[in-house]
Amino acid sequence: MGRAEPESLAVEESLAIEEPLEIRLGGRRFTLTMRTPGHDEELVAGFLLAEGFISSRAEIGEIRRMRRRKTQPDNVIDVILQVRAEDLRERLKRNFAISSSCGVCGKTSIESIQRRIAPLRDLSRVSPVTIIRLAPRMREAQVTFAATGGLHAAAIFDLAGNLRLLREDIGRHNAVDKAIGRYVMDGAIPLADSVMTVSGRASFEIVQKAAVAGIPILAAVSAPSSLAVELAEETGVTLVGFLRDAGFNVYAHPERIAG
Amino acid sequence: MGRAEPESLAVEESLAIEEPLEIRLGGRRFTLTMRTPGHDEELVAGFLLAEGFISSRAEIGEIRRMRRRKTQPDNVIDVILQVRAEDLRERLKRNFAISSSCGVCGKTSIESIQRRIAPLRDLSRVSPVTIIRLAPRMREAQVTFAATGGLHAAAIFDLAGNLRLLREDIGRHNAVDKAIGRYVMDGAIPLADSVMTVSGRASFEIVQKAAVAGIPILAAVSAPSSLAVELAEETGVTLVGFLRDAGFNVYAHPERIAG
Repeated sequence: MGRAEPESLAVEESLAIEEPLEIRLGGRRFTLTMRTPGHDEELVAGFLLAEGFISSRAEIGEIRRMRRRKTQPDNVIDVILQVRAEDLRERLKRNFAISSSCGVCGKTSIESIQRRIAPLRDLSRVSPVTIIRLAPRMREAQVTFAATGGLHAAAIFDLAGNLRLLREDIGRHNAVDKAIGRYVMDGAIPLADSVMTVSGRASFEIVQKAAVAGIPILAAVSAPSSLAVELAEETGVTLVGFLRDAGFNVYAHPERIAG
Repeated sequence: MGRAEPESLAVEESLAIEEPLEIRLGGRRFTLTMRTPGHDEELVAGFLLAEGFISSRAEIGEIRRMRRRKTQPDNVIDVILQVRAEDLRERLKRNFAISSSCGVCGKTSIESIQRRIAPLRDLSRVSPVTIIRLAPRMREAQVTFAATGGLHAAAIFDLAGNLRLLREDIGRHNAVDKAIGRYVMDGAIPLADSVMTVSGRASFEIVQKAAVAGIPILAAVSAPSSLAVELAEETGVTLVGFLRDAGFNVYAHPERIAG
């Protein structure tokens, strides 16, 4: 086949990188995800938190890269969990048990999250003026997007609107896992007194990740889904959508936006 | 928790619907995906084609909805494959075997697709003028997006730029699976002499779905990834990115774009 013309090659230099990452649990393959390389340990830690396999840094015994030869890419990560065998069995079972006797549906999905976490009841407050400033601040910090146009971003802000952390990835979910995973690695979960912004839409799984990490306010640049709004209501997450320079919509728990 | 204020409720009416769908193979749970309900059989057929579990309609013995009670949502689909047991074992093994002895990497991912399909060598041609017209035509056909701002689209066009089919879903991959799945159900794979457009980015998996379905030309409104470009080159798919009203970029196999 060969490579394309010179002008195509010039374009390619600024493409967002995508590579597979295999995540193993105790040496056994657990999942494979397509991600932008970098911050892989954070990605794994954030993923394991969101899926309910760990609840804190202490339950990660070891995260190590597997590599057979020096010439190979670093695309396999193995995690040794510090969890009792019976707890791990229980968590694995729960992870695959959404379709219980009552049938798989949005309500079941929400209940499976509710069984794992208590609803957020903190008194974090953020002003509408601060919310409005988050989108341009995230854009400014997104260095890769400007170059490739192909990366999603997730950012963590404090309640005054100061940027604490930004992560980018070709996958929406991965960007969120990387941002939250940094705080997992630092033993700083729950992420109270914070706002998370995401560059894309707010789906069920994005709200799930915020709720499990204890993030009280989630703001998406694009639209939320029906199930995302329901999950935000039930777990106590303030959900903002269509976060633009001119304004935003609030879909759940508007009481935290005051000022 | 209760519902939010009346103004939030008014907004919610136009939210994109998201619900889980469980896909079973021969009664055993295979995967769970979050999707917008509708065209579920197509979604399943397209997914099974892309993942290499079937190569044609003939290998789907039966697709049926499972439902325990009338009041339950239709969120479980069971597929009986018409594939010899040893072939199915082989396909399941291959599906999970990307990380072979040579290590998991982009090259391995591409090779696993190449083992399944021959590179496209057809002589389909489409003019640049036709390509330019595809994005506005897809937008016009996207009725749900206008209302919710939250759905991705995939559309199949003929080489003259006539819209043959459009599918929408909250998930990028699902929209593509639904569009291709329709042709699987109709026994119309490979989809030669066609162009597929997608509303978002072109990642590895989107190119994989096009290549496996035999679609010679793929055009994405947004950016492609590095691995998407490599896979398009190796499988013979013409890959267009940044398809906008003013122009587009060609990342692989520009020889099919001729005017």
